[in-house]
Amino acid sequence: MPSSARKTRLSRDNIMAVYTEISDLELESFLADYDFGKLLAFKGIAEGVENSNFLLQVEAGLFILTLYEKRVAAADLPFFLTLMEHLAARGLTCPQPVKTKSAKMLGRLAGRPAAIVTFLEGVSSRRPSVRQCAALGAALGQLHRAGADFRGSRPNALSLPAWPQLFALAGDRAEEVQTGLVSFVAAELAFLERSWPRGLPRGTIHADLFPDNVLFLGDKVSGLIDFYFACTDFLAYDLAVCLNAWCFEPDFSFNVTKSIALIEAYQTMRKLAPEEIEALPVLARGSALRFALTRLVDWLNVPPGALVRPKDPLEYVKRLRFHQRSKSPRDLGLKL
Amino acid sequence: MPSSARKTRLSRDNIMAVYTEISDLELESFLADYDFGKLLAFKGIAEGVENSNFLLQVEAGLFILTLYEKRVAAADLPFFLTLMEHLAARGLTCPQPVKTKSAKMLGRLAGRPAAIVTFLEGVSSRRPSVRQCAALGAALGQLHRAGADFRGSRPNALSLPAWPQLFALAGDRAEEVQTGLVSFVAAELAFLERSWPRGLPRGTIHADLFPDNVLFLGDKVSGLIDFYFACTDFLAYDLAVCLNAWCFEPDFSFNVTKSIALIEAYQTMRKLAPEEIEALPVLARGSALRFALTRLVDWLNVPPGALVRPKDPLEYVKRLRFHQRSKSPRDLGLKL
Repeated sequence: MPSSARKTRLSRDNIMAVYTEISDLELESFLADYDFGKLLAFKGIAEGVENSNFLLQVEAGLFILTLYEKRVAAADLPFFLTLMEHLAARGLTCPQPVKTKSAKMLGRLAGRPAAIVTFLEGVSSRRPSVRQCAALGAALGQLHRAGADFRGSRPNALSLPAWPQLFALAGDRAEEVQTGLVSFVAAELAFLERSWPRGLPRGTIHADLFPDNVLFLGDKVSGLIDFYFACTDFLAYDLAVCLNAWCFEPDFSFNVTKSIALIEAYQTMRKLAPEEIEALPVLARGSALRFALTRLVDWLNVPPGALVRPKDPLEYVKRLRFHQRSKSPRDLGLKL
Repeated sequence: MPSSARKTRLSRDNIMAVYTEISDLELESFLADYDFGKLLAFKGIAEGVENSNFLLQVEAGLFILTLYEKRVAAADLPFFLTLMEHLAARGLTCPQPVKTKSAKMLGRLAGRPAAIVTFLEGVSSRRPSVRQCAALGAALGQLHRAGADFRGSRPNALSLPAWPQLFALAGDRAEEVQTGLVSFVAAELAFLERSWPRGLPRGTIHADLFPDNVLFLGDKVSGLIDFYFACTDFLAYDLAVCLNAWCFEPDFSFNVTKSIALIEAYQTMRKLAPEEIEALPVLARGSALRFALTRLVDWLNVPPGALVRPKDPLEYVKRLRFHQRSKSPRDLGLKL
């Protein structure tokens, strides 16, 4: 490819992947530590925005090679990798870290921490169906069950205590995004600080189980991916993230058929306690605010001329307004 | 992935792929026209900067789906696709267009022309060895032989007549890149207009056979890819492009061991005529200027803040200076 600067117009239909280039020689030497047979192909793939990912074809099959870029703390990598190993060992279809001949899961390549995980078949759904919401609910319940005896722990760096800081990062410029947003968020923060539940069942949560992180073959979940926000928090908070990410229609109406399907399937795997059901509306407000705030900070910090267009924070403000209006867990499809 | 704006610092180690997003439903409907069995996975891949490419895993195997973006003229697509089909039928390992059930090679997906080609194993070499240069030379000769009876034809849009226009696009701003560059290029253009050969053997050439467009398994060529600059021109010009792209060391010294290996292997497949040998130094100058000029235009037209860094035009100015100093085809490793 002789000339690589392209004046690409930005639109919602464009996605970007920036990745670290790896030379064939570096890669061959890295792979020599694995029991893979010959290298047959490798291609940079656009999966995950945080890290650089490559599809690796070796005689042993297809794998994903991940180079961890700056946004992932190297100290957290053992948590993520041992979690995936733990979950895969309990039958969850998630990427399984592959060990080197000397049983290491984490190495270094092109100056970055690097790991290889198994390749999972499946295609993520852009507009999940009711059946897919049900399948996701069951997979989430299975994830929480499989994680119950996981010993690792990692605080949720993007929970209640972090939100005022994110809000401060945005500052008054939030008004540029929507007039009145500053007082709206301030009031919501005050409400959540008063109302955030205590003492709910805790465990290992995915914390980012959006449709792009779930692979399907037809209506069957074939894999959960991208565990790089996983942490220890209320299990019901993970459910709240999924209700927000899976059950709103493109016009931001809440599809209660989807939420009922999701929640009922979840409960076939793990029964919700009454206090979790009661807390879900507040958890849903908190989860909506969390994504509104991180998107807001990204939105206000795009370098001029950048080719990436950040996701619209108002999509999560709209979800939050829905939750503010709802009166009871029943509005989310929960049965008391 | 909840937040997608990343402040990624630009460096030579970063490569970018922007691609058109395809929904799972659009894709399923597009694939229904093919005899592929079920869709098992698809991932956007960073291959080719001109187009959007996806790795497609179906029951029938691995394939590449390409969406043609603006820089490729839709009217040229039948030429490129029938050329690949022609070459593959003659045993060249290049991507082979796959036909729909109704025998079409070209369709539309996500508002763009789209085609599916076979997936080729292999890894491109960042620093080609002498053996790899020899293998490339033989593959180029094979390509020229296989293309000899191809009926399609497409003018080379980036040959001699186009260079003054490219130069005009850069204009006086070329001086920002290197002082004296404007008069240097003007003098070279005048020389090439006087000295450009006539009447050399013509045929279908790849015209962009850089190391990223050649896949190897070890020292064996396993595939030639990215035919989207292919056109009808002097066959020896293709060889000149390869001498420039494969035989210079990172310090821009010319490695005559590599060029001898490349040329000799080429001639095992297709013997050069004496007039081609004699013309090669001028063709090498022209080819160096062509890449210097397209890079120069890209370099001067990067949108502010863009994440892509264009390739350095001076890398080809340095090659051109080498060729200006050389006195005879012997300096390129050619035997008279």
